[in-house]
Amino acid sequence: MTGYGVVERSGADVRHVAHGTLRPARGATLAARLAAIHEGVCRVIAAHRPDTVVVEQVFVASNARAALVLGHARGVALAAASAAGLAVEELSPQDVKRAVAGTGAAEKGQVQRMVQRLLALDSAPARDAADALAAALCRAHRGRLAARGPRARRPRARRAAGGFVLRRAP
Amino acid sequence: MTGYGVVERSGADVRHVAHGTLRPARGATLAARLAAIHEGVCRVIAAHRPDTVVVEQVFVASNARAALVLGHARGVALAAASAAGLAVEELSPQDVKRAVAGTGAAEKGQVQRMVQRLLALDSAPARDAADALAAALCRAHRGRLAARGPRARRPRARRAAGGFVLRRAP
Repeated sequence: MTGYGVVERSGADVRHVAHGTLRPARGATLAARLAAIHEGVCRVIAAHRPDTVVVEQVFVASNARAALVLGHARGVALAAASAAGLAVEELSPQDVKRAVAGTGAAEKGQVQRMVQRLLALDSAPARDAADALAAALCRAHRGRLAARGPRARRPRARRAAGGFVLRRAP
Repeated sequence: MTGYGVVERSGADVRHVAHGTLRPARGATLAARLAAIHEGVCRVIAAHRPDTVVVEQVFVASNARAALVLGHARGVALAAASAAGLAVEELSPQDVKRAVAGTGAAEKGQVQRMVQRLLALDSAPARDAADALAAALCRAHRGRLAARGPRARRPRARRAAGGFVLRRAP
């Protein structure tokens, strides 16, 4: 299951564009589920045309099997974003949490509530989608800070950032 | 680096079609290298139109980081094959080695020499390509045995099997 979230930044303003979860059919083979994720990522990119795609960095602990499975889905998303000609960035989960909740140790529910608040959503997004939106928000705010620097005189185009957070086995 | 190999089976006869190695540019980002692997796999499939794609199963030992990196490339290949509508099968490295060298404990060089001999090649393919050809050969021979069974009366079409063996970090 893969969450995605898209935000748009215009100057200091960041607004919600879309979020959701890619859910490959449960009974499908691993290859078919990965193809579905690839297609889903391509569809989200085509629909929302972000400038930048952010994918959460993964720090794998002890389970090599889980790392392999997670790597499958992550590789598919990275390849799709790069093939679309987009800049792909990786952010650590800690940085993402800090950006939306003020602490790198924030819990899941806290991230969901803060994403809802920051983007003025009617309800809290599901966990994976909330993580993706948080990553996109984190990137959007970084972009804003960077724009205040030496390159601040460049015109401030509206920029969409798409976050894909790959959490669990596809 | 990703090796590939394609063989064609006609009855009991298995002949060499193609082999090679996908080498994404060294300096490129992870996402760009994965996109290059995806494109390469799609190109090989389009050029040789196999019926079946075989990917080596991975039994990861202790290193979760290596498993994640390997998973990236593997996911991309599996997704590309499935999106092309091909049957994707996984074979264990032991079965592949046993099929070409008579023992699941065969060493790399042994696999390279046996692949060269079985497919009557002028020289031994590089390691990754040899592993891929061995996987394709293993699958082709299994197909032949299966064809002797209940479905033996089906017409024996020429069938190409493509093997992709993902060995190292892309």
